[in-house]
Amino acid sequence: MIVVMKRNATGEEVRHMVQRVESLGLKAHVLYGVERTVIAAIGPERDGLKDSLESGTGVAEVLPILAPYKIASRELKSEPTVVAVGSLKVGGRHLGVIAGPCSVENEDQILRTARAVKAAGASALRGGAFKPRTSPYSFQGLKEDGLKLLAAARDATGLAVVTEVLATEDVPLVAKYADVVQIGARNMQNYRLLEAVGKMPQPVLLKRGPSATMEELLLAAEYILDAGNPQVMLCERGIRTFETHTRFTLPLASVPYLHSKTHLPVVVDPSHGTGHTYLVPRMAAASVAAGADGLILEVHPDPENAMSDGYQSLNVEQFAQTMELCRRVAAAMGKEM
Amino acid sequence: MIVVMKRNATGEEVRHMVQRVESLGLKAHVLYGVERTVIAAIGPERDGLKDSLESGTGVAEVLPILAPYKIASRELKSEPTVVAVGSLKVGGRHLGVIAGPCSVENEDQILRTARAVKAAGASALRGGAFKPRTSPYSFQGLKEDGLKLLAAARDATGLAVVTEVLATEDVPLVAKYADVVQIGARNMQNYRLLEAVGKMPQPVLLKRGPSATMEELLLAAEYILDAGNPQVMLCERGIRTFETHTRFTLPLASVPYLHSKTHLPVVVDPSHGTGHTYLVPRMAAASVAAGADGLILEVHPDPENAMSDGYQSLNVEQFAQTMELCRRVAAAMGKEM
Amino acid sequence: MIVVMKRNATGEEVRHMVQRVESLGLKAHVLYGVERTVIAAIGPERDGLKDSLESGTGVAEVLPILAPYKIASRELKSEPTVVAVGSLKVGGRHLGVIAGPCSVENEDQILRTARAVKAAGASALRGGAFKPRTSPYSFQGLKEDGLKLLAAARDATGLAVVTEVLATEDVPLVAKYADVVQIGARNMQNYRLLEAVGKMPQPVLLKRGPSATMEELLLAAEYILDAGNPQVMLCERGIRTFETHTRFTLPLASVPYLHSKTHLPVVVDPSHGTGHTYLVPRMAAASVAAGADGLILEVHPDPENAMSDGYQSLNVEQFAQTMELCRRVAAAMGKEM
Amino acid sequence: MIVVMKRNATGEEVRHMVQRVESLGLKAHVLYGVERTVIAAIGPERDGLKDSLESGTGVAEVLPILAPYKIASRELKSEPTVVAVGSLKVGGRHLGVIAGPCSVENEDQILRTARAVKAAGASALRGGAFKPRTSPYSFQGLKEDGLKLLAAARDATGLAVVTEVLATEDVPLVAKYADVVQIGARNMQNYRLLEAVGKMPQPVLLKRGPSATMEELLLAAEYILDAGNPQVMLCERGIRTFETHTRFTLPLASVPYLHSKTHLPVVVDPSHGTGHTYLVPRMAAASVAAGADGLILEVHPDPENAMSDGYQSLNVEQFAQTMELCRRVAAAMGKEM
Repeated sequence: MIVVMKRNATGEEVRHMVQRVESLGLKAHVLYGVERTVIAAIGPERDGLKDSLESGTGVAEVLPILAPYKIASRELKSEPTVVAVGSLKVGGRHLGVIAGPCSVENEDQILRTARAVKAAGASALRGGAFKPRTSPYSFQGLKEDGLKLLAAARDATGLAVVTEVLATEDVPLVAKYADVVQIGARNMQNYRLLEAVGKMPQPVLLKRGPSATMEELLLAAEYILDAGNPQVMLCERGIRTFETHTRFTLPLASVPYLHSKTHLPVVVDPSHGTGHTYLVPRMAAASVAAGADGLILEVHPDPENAMSDGYQSLNVEQFAQTMELCRRVAAAMGKEM
Repeated sequence: MIVVMKRNATGEEVRHMVQRVESLGLKAHVLYGVERTVIAAIGPERDGLKDSLESGTGVAEVLPILAPYKIASRELKSEPTVVAVGSLKVGGRHLGVIAGPCSVENEDQILRTARAVKAAGASALRGGAFKPRTSPYSFQGLKEDGLKLLAAARDATGLAVVTEVLATEDVPLVAKYADVVQIGARNMQNYRLLEAVGKMPQPVLLKRGPSATMEELLLAAEYILDAGNPQVMLCERGIRTFETHTRFTLPLASVPYLHSKTHLPVVVDPSHGTGHTYLVPRMAAASVAAGADGLILEVHPDPENAMSDGYQSLNVEQFAQTMELCRRVAAAMGKEM
Repeated sequence: MIVVMKRNATGEEVRHMVQRVESLGLKAHVLYGVERTVIAAIGPERDGLKDSLESGTGVAEVLPILAPYKIASRELKSEPTVVAVGSLKVGGRHLGVIAGPCSVENEDQILRTARAVKAAGASALRGGAFKPRTSPYSFQGLKEDGLKLLAAARDATGLAVVTEVLATEDVPLVAKYADVVQIGARNMQNYRLLEAVGKMPQPVLLKRGPSATMEELLLAAEYILDAGNPQVMLCERGIRTFETHTRFTLPLASVPYLHSKTHLPVVVDPSHGTGHTYLVPRMAAASVAAGADGLILEVHPDPENAMSDGYQSLNVEQFAQTMELCRRVAAAMGKEM
Repeated sequence: MIVVMKRNATGEEVRHMVQRVESLGLKAHVLYGVERTVIAAIGPERDGLKDSLESGTGVAEVLPILAPYKIASRELKSEPTVVAVGSLKVGGRHLGVIAGPCSVENEDQILRTARAVKAAGASALRGGAFKPRTSPYSFQGLKEDGLKLLAAARDATGLAVVTEVLATEDVPLVAKYADVVQIGARNMQNYRLLEAVGKMPQPVLLKRGPSATMEELLLAAEYILDAGNPQVMLCERGIRTFETHTRFTLPLASVPYLHSKTHLPVVVDPSHGTGHTYLVPRMAAASVAAGADGLILEVHPDPENAMSDGYQSLNVEQFAQTMELCRRVAAAMGKEM
C-alpha cells in the first residue's frame, strides 16, 4: 500500500501515519520526494486497510498494489480451470455453447427448442424457471414446473441444464434439477446467495452485474470459491453506459482481461449484451474471436410469441447459422466447439 | 404504444402488425406518413406488450407512452406521502435526518454516536448490523448482537432505528428491532426480498442501485407497494459513471424528477454519494436545496478507527456543523428540520 | 413525430398543440387513448421541430420517428460505400489495415515502421504529425516536418498515408501530404473542421468521440457529406464508461449497428479502444469478427521509448502475429484482407 | 511515481526498470514487499513519464502521485481567483448570475431578455451568435449580426456580455464584442482554440466536456493559463451517463472537489445540466448550496417559440422566481449575489 501525503502535510502528520501503518502490522518506508512525502506500507494488504489509512489526517490518497481476490487469481493457479458437467465443457480449448429460451413456457416449447439447439451443436440447454422481472406485473416463471420441464428436456436430449436461482431458499430445489446453477446479473452481489451456491456441488455461472467492475466480479466469484465450490464460470453480459442503441454495452475486452487475471473460464452472453436479435450473430462471432470459453444464447422457436425477451432471441434457423459462423471463427482461434 | 414500421416495410407486414395489436386487445390506428407508416396501439399498456410487438417483422421500434408503475405514480395519488415512525418524519414539509455509523461496532460506539447525533438534531439513528461487503474477507457485521445494540441506543435516546436487511430469511429478525428497514443498493432488484419487506408493518428505505434507472427504482418500489406496504422512502445514493474523483456520482436532479413522478418521499445519501468526508457537508446542503425530504449521513465518533467507511464518515463535530448549514438551507427552502 | 400529452392535459392544451403542429406544416391526427391523448404529427421531421413542440404546455414528451441524418442513411443508399485510395481499400468485402506509430518521431522510426507494417500486410500507414495532447506540457508533434517524413515513407513503401488534422487553418497543409485525413475523437464535433475537410478531395477517417452517440457520430459524418465529400470512414475507438481496467470501453456492437443504419464503412481502433498492448491482438480479431471494414493499429519499433502511446502500441513482431490472427478470422467471415 | 512490478517479475526486469527510472532523471528506491516489488521513482513527474514507464517489461502498473496541472493548482495559489469584468463578479464571496437565451434571434428578443434578466438581478447576459449544432441542418446562429445585437443589449442595460467562440479564426471578431469568451463543451479539448483565447485579454468561461474528467478539465484550463490568460472560470454543465430522464447528469460534487484542487472559480449550468425547464430552479438552488461561484441560465421571453433550447429555458417570470430562491440559499451559504 502506498500512502501519499498531501503536499502541505506536517511532519507530525507523517509521523502519525507511520505509527498507524506499523500498528496495522505493516512495515513503513518513508520516501521524501521533491514535492511531497510518500509512505510505502509493505506487507499483506488485508481488506479494510486502505479505507482505514485513507481517513488519516494529511493523507491525500492510498494506492493499493495487490488485488483483493485470492483463490480466483491467476497468480495463485496459472492453468485455466475447465468446468465440465454432462454434455458441457467450458475452458481451456473447449468452447461450450449454452442455448435456449429466456423462460420455460410449456413442454412443447422447451422440448422443441432443446432438440433444435442440440441438432445445431449446442452443448447445454438454458431456460428460466424462476424469472427476476423488473416489474411486479410481469410473468415470473413456471417455478418448479419449469424445472421439471427442463429435466424432461435433458432426458430427451442429453443436454446439461443451466437455470437461474433467485433466492437462498430456492437453492435446494433448483439444485435438484439443474446441472449448472446461474446467478443472474441483479444478484451478483447477493452475498448470501453466493455463499449458498458455494456450498452446492453444481458448477455456477456467475453473471456480471451491469455496473460491476472486474474487481467486484472477481470478488463475487471469490465468495463462491471461498465457500468451497471451485467450478465458477464468469459471464460477461454487458454493462450500463450512455449508449441507447443497444440495451447494454458489450465490452469484449473483459474476456482477455479476465484471462490475464483469473484461471476461471469466461462465457459471453450476446443476447442480453446487445438486446436485439439482429446484432447477436456477429457479436457471438466477435466473442469467440475475443477468446470466450463459452457462449450463452437466447433461442426460441417463435420469438414473436415468446413470453419474455423475444426481441433478443434467435429463432432456430438463425441459431443454426450463428453456430456455423462461430464454428469457423473458433477454428481460426484454435478452439474446439 | 406507438409501433413505428421500417421505411421499407411491406403492406403485408403492416397488416400483420395491425392484427397482432388487435389480438392483444388494443385498438389500432394506422397513420400513413410521408416517409413511413406508424401504428398507434391504443389501450392499457400491459407489461410485456412492448417487447412482444418489438419482435414483429418490419417493426423499427415500439415507443411506450405510459409509465409501467402504477401505485407509486403521482398521477394516481397527487399529495406527497409522509412517512412517520417514532422520532422520524419524512415527506411533505418534513425533512428527516438519519445519522449514525456504517457498522454497529460495540455498545460504547453506538451509544456515543446516538447521543451525539441526537444532540445535533438528527431525527433517526442508522447503523449496520448485517453488512453487505464486496469482499468475503471483510467484516460482515455483528448481526443480532448489532440489532440489540441499536435497540439499546433507541431506548437511551428515543431515536428511531434504521437498519439494513440483506436476505429474506433475516426479515423477521431485523423487523423485531428496527423502526425502518433498509434495502441496500445491491439488493434493489432482489425481488423476493422486496416482497418480504412489503409484507412487514415497518416503513422501508429503498436505496437506488448504482446503475438503476428512475423507472427501475420506481418499479422496485412498486414491488413493495404491491405487496401491501405503503410506506416507502426512495433513496438516491449515487450512480456509477466514468467519474473517479468521487466514489459514485450523486445526481441530484433525481430529487425534483422523482417529485414530479411519484408521491413517495426522497432521501439523499451524500456519504455514499461522494465517498469522501470533505465533500459531504456541501452535498448535504445541495441535497436540501434540491428539495430532498430526508438525508442519511454516516457519522462515527472516530472515523480513522471505524471498521468500515471511515473515509466517508463525518465525525461528531463535522456532523453538527453540517446540521447547522442544512438547517439554514432548509429554512430558505421552506422546510422543517 | 408523436406528441404525447400529459395525463391531465386539458382540451385547451390539446387544441393548442394541434394548431402548433399544423402551423409547423405537419398534419395532426389526434388519438384519444384510454388514459391519455396523443397527437401524431405527420410530415417531414425537420430539425428543431421536436425541441419546439416539447416546450408546449401540457406536453409530456415528443417522440421522433425518423433519423435526423439523410445522406449517411442506408435507407437512402443501400449498397455499402467502398473507400479506395492508393494502397487502401475499405468497405464491402475489403478489410483495410492502417498501421503505424502514434507520433512521427524521426525518419528512421517512421521508415522502419512503414517497411515492417507493409511486410506484415498492412494496407496504409498511420502517424501523427499534429498531436492533440491532454496536457499543454506534452510533445505536440513534428508538424510539417512530420508530414514530410510520412510522404517519404509513402514514397519508400507505396503505402497510403493517414494522418490527423487538428484545426481548420492546417487543412490545406495536411491535405498536401495526406492520402486520408483523420478527424480525431476530440474534434468529432468541431463542426467548422468537419466542413473544411468536407471540401477536400481526400477521404476522411472520422473518429467517434468518447461520449458520442451513434446519432451524433452519423450527424458529424453528415456535416462532411453535406459539404460535398462522399468518402467518409467511421471509426469506433472506444467510449468512456465506468470501467477502469481498460482506457476506454470498446463497444463492438456499434459495427453491425452502423452497418444497419449507414452505407459508410466502419473501421475499429483496438489500440485506443483498450489502451493496453496485451489486449490489442484479441480485440483486433474480435473487431474483424464483428464485421469491421478496417482496423487502425498503433505499431512502434520500440514501444518502451515511444514519445507517446507506447503502452498501447504493438511492436513489429506483435503486429505480424496480430495480422496472422486477423487474416484467419477475416477468412472465416468471408472478407479479403 | 510508483512503479509496481508484476508478482512474477524477474530480478533482471527490476534492475532494468531501476535503470530506466534513473535515466529519466528520477531517483529510484526499490521496495521488496512480501508479495511483489515496488520501485518508487522520486522527482518531478514530467508529462509522459508514466506512459513511458508503463510500457516496460514486468511492469504491472505505474501510479502517479502528483497532479499534472500546475498553474491551475490550489497548491500553487491558495486564495481563490475572482474574475471581474464590468457588471460580473465571480469567485470568492461573489456569486455571479449569467442569464439569457441560447441563441440571439433578433433585436427585440435580446433586448427584452436583457432588460428582464437585469431587472431580476442577473449580473451578465449570455447569448449565442455562433452556435455549434449537432445537425448540419439546424440554425447555426446570426454570427456577427448576433454579436452586434449583444453589444447593443450591453449598451442598453450595462450587463457584461458572455458569448461562445467556435473557431480560432473567429476569436478576434468575437473578442471585439464580448466581455467574456465562452468555450463550449464540444470544444473543451480543441487545444488550438484554447491557446487562442489564452492570448486574449477577456476572461474565459470554459465548459466541461460531457465525458471529461476533472483532470482533463483542469488541463484544458492549463492550456489557457499557460498561454497567458489568468482569468478562467470553469463551468460544470453535466456529464453523459446512462441516465435518460435528464439530458445530462449534473454532478454537483464537482464544485467542492474543484474548490479543493484549484483556485479558479466554478460556474454551474443547470439548463444544459438537466435539459428540462421544470428541473432548473431546484438544481440552480442546489448548485448555490454546493458552493458554486456562478450560475449560467438559459432564459427566453417565449421558450415555446425559441429557435433553440426552448425545452430547457426559463421564461422571464420563472427566472425571477429562481433568482428569489437562489438569493435565499446564497444568504444561507454566506455568499453575495
